Formats: sequence, C-alpha cells, structure tokens
Amino acid sequence: MKEMLEAAKAAKSRIAGLTAEEKNAALNAMADSLLMCETAILEANALDLEGAKGHMSDVMLDRLRLTPERIASMAKGIREVAALPDPVGLTLESHTRQDGLKIDKVSVPMGVIAIIYESRPNVTSDAAALALKSGNVCILRGGKEAFHSANAIVNVLRMGLQSTDIPVTAVNLVQDTSRDSALALMTADGYVDLLIPRGGAGLINACVRNATVPCIATGTGICHVYVEKTADQEMALNIIENAKTSRPSVCNAEEVLLVDKAIAAEFLPKLRKRLGNKVELRLDKEAEKYIPGTPAGEKDFDTEFLDYILAVKCVEDVREAVAHISAHSTGHSEAIITTDPVAERYFTANVDSAAVYVNASTRFTDGGEFGLGCEMGISTQKLHARGPMGLRELTTYKYIIHGNGQVRV
Amino acid sequence: MKEMLEAAKAAKSRIAGLTAEEKNAALNAMADSLLMCETAILEANALDLEGAKGHMSDVMLDRLRLTPERIASMAKGIREVAALPDPVGLTLESHTRQDGLKIDKVSVPMGVIAIIYESRPNVTSDAAALALKSGNVCILRGGKEAFHSANAIVNVLRMGLQSTDIPVTAVNLVQDTSRDSALALMTADGYVDLLIPRGGAGLINACVRNATVPCIATGTGICHVYVEKTADQEMALNIIENAKTSRPSVCNAEEVLLVDKAIAAEFLPKLRKRLGNKVELRLDKEAEKYIPGTPAGEKDFDTEFLDYILAVKCVEDVREAVAHISAHSTGHSEAIITTDPVAERYFTANVDSAAVYVNASTRFTDGGEFGLGCEMGISTQKLHARGPMGLRELTTYKYIIHGNGQVRV
Repeated sequence: MKEMLEAAKAAKSRIAGLTAEEKNAALNAMADSLLMCETAILEANALDLEGAKGHMSDVMLDRLRLTPERIASMAKGIREVAALPDPVGLTLESHTRQDGLKIDKVSVPMGVIAIIYESRPNVTSDAAALALKSGNVCILRGGKEAFHSANAIVNVLRMGLQSTDIPVTAVNLVQDTSRDSALALMTADGYVDLLIPRGGAGLINACVRNATVPCIATGTGICHVYVEKTADQEMALNIIENAKTSRPSVCNAEEVLLVDKAIAAEFLPKLRKRLGNKVELRLDKEAEKYIPGTPAGEKDFDTEFLDYILAVKCVEDVREAVAHISAHSTGHSEAIITTDPVAERYFTANVDSAAVYVNASTRFTDGGEFGLGCEMGISTQKLHARGPMGLRELTTYKYIIHGNGQVRV
Repeated sequence: MKEMLEAAKAAKSRIAGLTAEEKNAALNAMADSLLMCETAILEANALDLEGAKGHMSDVMLDRLRLTPERIASMAKGIREVAALPDPVGLTLESHTRQDGLKIDKVSVPMGVIAIIYESRPNVTSDAAALALKSGNVCILRGGKEAFHSANAIVNVLRMGLQSTDIPVTAVNLVQDTSRDSALALMTADGYVDLLIPRGGAGLINACVRNATVPCIATGTGICHVYVEKTADQEMALNIIENAKTSRPSVCNAEEVLLVDKAIAAEFLPKLRKRLGNKVELRLDKEAEKYIPGTPAGEKDFDTEFLDYILAVKCVEDVREAVAHISAHSTGHSEAIITTDPVAERYFTANVDSAAVYVNASTRFTDGGEFGLGCEMGISTQKLHARGPMGLRELTTYKYIIHGNGQVRV
C-alpha cells in the first residue's frame, strides 16, 4: 500500500498538468480497451458471481453482474466523460485591486482521490474516468465480492493508458480487500487528498469515524415521500410506484412513505392495490387500521432496505412529516406530493436534505438526470459537495496572485 | 454542553429563515451594544491580561489585549458584515429539463457552526457576526486565556440580539474551556454541521484527528518566500521585510525564506542588513557561509514561529524550492520573487497551497484584502473552501426540484 500511495503521489503533478486533449485521448483509449477485452472482463466477473452465490440477495447479485451490454455501457460512459468540458484550469473569479495586485481564483484538481466502494463493478470504470478527466490520480479499493471484476477492469483501463504517454499509476487498484487496506486509505495523511466512500451505511460510518484524510460521505439514502392531504392521489401513486419499484437497489429509491392521517383511509387501500404483492409494506399502528401488511418495527424507519420493502407511517401534517424526516433521514432526497403552496414552502424550506422534491420522484437525484453529465456519487453531507457529484466537485481551487512588488500596508 | 447543543439545534430553522433585513438590524444592534458596553468588556479583558502575565509572549499578549480602538474596530467589523450581500437563498444554478422538471440549486446555511479558537478576543464578535449573516447558529468555544473577554463580548452581543426578536441562542459561548468541551464539539454528530478550529497546529491537528463532525482546518501558516535567481533583489527585500515583520503573529506571515544558491552570496548580506537585529535568522549550512545567524535545526523548517524568527535555506533552483515547499508547507501562502516566466509558471502550477504569489507579499492572504469583505479564517484544506473563508464559504446548497408528477423512466 505504501508503495501505491507513493506512486500515486508521484504521478499527481503530471496528471494535474495534462491538457484536455491528452486526457480525452486517454479516456477514449480506455473505452476502446474495455470493448476489446470484453471476454476477459466477463470471465473475471463470472468468478465473482460464482463466489457470491448463496450469500448475496438477488438484488445485490444483479448489481455485481456484468454483461456485454453493461460493458458497452461502461465504455460509452467513459466516452461521455471525455466529451464533457474540462473542469481544470478555469478562472472562477478574477479581481484586480487598485494597487495592481491581480487575484485569480483558478480551479485545480484535488490531487489523489481514493474511492472505497462495494460490489458494483461499473463504479471502477466510472470512477477512474471521472478522476482522470478532473486531473486527479485515483486509488480504487473495491469490495472483495467484486475483486476479480475490478482487477480485470483496471488492467484493461491501464492497457488503454499504455497506448498514450500517461503513466498507468494514474489509475490504481488496491489488491488487498481486507479492512486493513480501507483503514490505511482513511488515514493516509499527506497522500490522499480526498476519500470518497461509496456504499452502505456501515462503510460510510466507518469512514466518517476513522478518516483523518478529507472525506465526503455519499450515498446512504433513506429517502422519504410524503403525501400531503391535498395531494393529487393518482400522481402520488405514480410517484411512489416509480420511487420504490423502478430500481430498489439504488440510493435514490424511496424507503419510507409518510401519509397525512386525514387521507390515510382513502389513500392507503389504493396504494396497497397499486403496489400489489411486489412490495412488502411495513406499517405503523395507524396505517395498520386501513390495510394489511407487516407491523413496522422501530428500526424500519431507519433502514435503507434497498429492496422491495416500504415503511409506512401516518402523520398529522407537514410539520410532523418534516420532524420525522429530520430525525430519520440520511439527508439524501425527500419528496412532498401536494397542491397546497403553504405546505410546499414549509417542506422545501425546512427539509435539510441534498434534494427536496415537490411532486416528482426521488429517483431523479443523479448526476446524469441533473444535467451534470456524470457522477462520482451522491454526497449526503453539506461540506464541499451536496447531492450528485460531477467533475466540478472533484476539483478544488487555488488563488494565484500576480504583483509587481506589492506589500501590505 | 448537551443543553447548549439542543438549544442551538432548536434555533437553526428560525435563524436560517431570517430575512436579510432582520439579520442586518440584529447585527447593527450587536455593534451598538459593543460600543455601549465598552467598559465592561475592557474590565473583563483586564482580568484575562492579568492572568496571562508572565506565561505569554509579548506577541501573544498583544493578540489578547483589547483597547477602546479595538472594540470600536470590532463594532465597525460587524457593521461591515451587515452591509455585505446576503449569501443565503441565492439561486446558484437553475435547469429546466425537457420533461418540465425544474431543478434549482439554492444556497442555504450550514446550520450550526462551532468555532474553537484561542486567544484573540475579536474572533468572538467576528465569528458571531459572520455566522448570523450567513444564517447559521454559532457555538463559540474560546481559549481559557481569553475567557473573561469572550464571555463579556457574547453577553453584550446577546444584549443587542435581545432588542430584536431573534433568539439569543443564535450566539452561544461554551462556558467550559477544558479539553473536554472541545472534544465534545468535535464529536457532536447530528448537532454541529461544521466545525472550524482557528488556532495553532496543536488545535488543528487535534480537530483533524478527533472530529467526527465536518471540519475545516484553518490558519496554520508556514509560509515561504522564494527568491529566484533572476529576482529584482530590492523588491525581494521589501516583500520579505513586509511578510516577516509587519505582523509576525498572524498566519500569513513568512516563516521560511528560500534563496537560490546562485545569488545567496550577494543577496543574503543585503537581507541581513535590511532586517537588522529585529529578526533572528536560522540558517542552513549554505546560508551560514555568507552571513552570521543561528544554525537552523531540522525543526526550524516545520515551525510556525509567529515571532521575529525566519528560517533561511539555500536551494539549487525552482524545482528544489517547490519540492521543499511540498514537503514542509501547511498549504497556506507561498511567494516567488522572479523575473523569469518559466520559473514563475513552474511555481504557480506546482505549489499546492491556497494562495500562490508572484512578486507580492504573503500578507495579502486575508478575506478583506481579497475582496470578500470579511473572513472566518483561512482554510488550508482543499475541501469546500480554500484560503480566506467569507460568507459564501459558510453556506452550503440544496437542490429544490419542482415537478408536476414526473417519474424517472
């Protein structure tokens, strides 16, 4: 690990200084390489799938699985990153003082970005592409379940780099998938400029607790949809069905439904009917009065199910809904379905999450959907980046000041 | 402490929702109150000065001392903050998708900002004013040397608040100045949205190591001035004199001088003459050949002296200068004095600090001097804010998305 950290640090200045053309050529070469080596990647992925069988849910197995289509989509993703504008070297602000001192605020790469993630193999290529495009060296540390896939992908990406004169140490994969290696990255002071954990609550919390390097917590999404009493109920059903069932394994999927008591008797039976047997409902005492379902345990309102499960709670009004969200949300995405402008304003002003929706599905919280073109993850913290992190969020800035002898009086 | 954290959290939503007019009226009332209660503040400060006598350097005693002029300047500082534009509620970006979904990125306060600082009493009023203006509740935890002063100032500021209908819990001072209270703030998960330590390396490191709440490291400044061989030497002398001696106790003061070997024999005697007996020079082996001074120990190149001491090292060229800075700098401010555009570009591209100067004094790294109007501290980290932190850096953003039933396909 020490060796990899040194190599990454040594590559920093070279990668930060690459032109947009050099980076884009390298990215396209990486995409070509992925397509060319599809078979090797699928073979490695088969090893991972074999190893995971029996101790992974179907939803999680699906996240791990690669197909020719998914590899093509990874390559396409890299080319899309290449096509985005270069986020580095932009003069963000410029100010010339009366004494002639010129102060420029210029965007620069972070340096070395470490990403600790779990089982989605496409994160490997996405993260490598985003890091390179933003002038950063990356150190990837995937989960052991996906190690063969990630290793094959990094080897293939490095083959692409080898066709350019960019050092392969721009993209690094940690070979050790034990806790030790994660901890080593979290505490690699002076080597890692930014740590991004992508994964479940356990990983994120371990990083927040143990990291001494700068860290951005991402992705844990206990997302709420609140159906206010004036809501268009048909719209509410469409949004809930989409937020819960279109892709339950992702962080912007709905996990908790809040419903105003005033409409619970009318709305909940329609909900039960709409979701059918596809979704297990975990109901609070009030909701149980109106529809059949599993009685909700206390934990059910603090769990990211990532599965076809929805916790349901009845609330008095928008104030109780917001108070419940404040106490239980991970700060990712929350939606209100309402036609009342007062309830809407109270909700958008007081819900302290990265994305606050009015009459739309939480599933839109995504770099691509938000128009950023790509995404390194969804920040659930307030520092530096909040919500979908695109290229810009992988840079910092410095002030470059030009004078001709100015001193401070 | 628990009680104060709860009170701060409870005040968050009210303070975040204040209009610019309400905040400005409160700030002006706080400034009035400071002037009105000058005597009480000076009496409290006298207690602190009495307590500090004998175990504080003159430079540090000067930082602790209040005078009627300094109190007036604190009040003026608050009024200047009131006059700045409101950083909250700005639509930073707006994007309407083809499906009609409107995505607004809106600036919002952080929530509760905790500031742990040391002996400068004016930090108390500055921090309170900046926090309020940016819609944040603040929890101030000053050093024990300045406790009486800080307590008097906070009481006086709260008197000002009492003349408005803003809750006094907008501004809070921790009464316990032991390490325990600092540690409690660093780990107040769910209560403190941002921790800003302002002070020496010991404090900053303790925060970086122990904080589980989001934290911005500020202010440790081992600032370098590098005199490249083509430099205008008279300009270099002026800049060094300014950077070292105009205010040695502050973080943007120069601590280390790097000089090209090629000009050392000519330049160092001029430097010795210019700085006279006012500054102790700690010289590396090469510099010792040309001028008298104290032999530098290894630590002298990693110390923020905050005093009339300057470490001096001779280097081969700009590459060695940048390598030395990379290894020893705190990432605050560094300057090159040169007339060679190649050396200049190498220096500005490769020095990874918040502020990189060409032919100007490092003393300009300051919110006021940079045109931000004010400053909460100088960030030496890359995440969220780098360099002087003004009002904008005390806010975050959230996405507010308006739809009419959109779901993700």
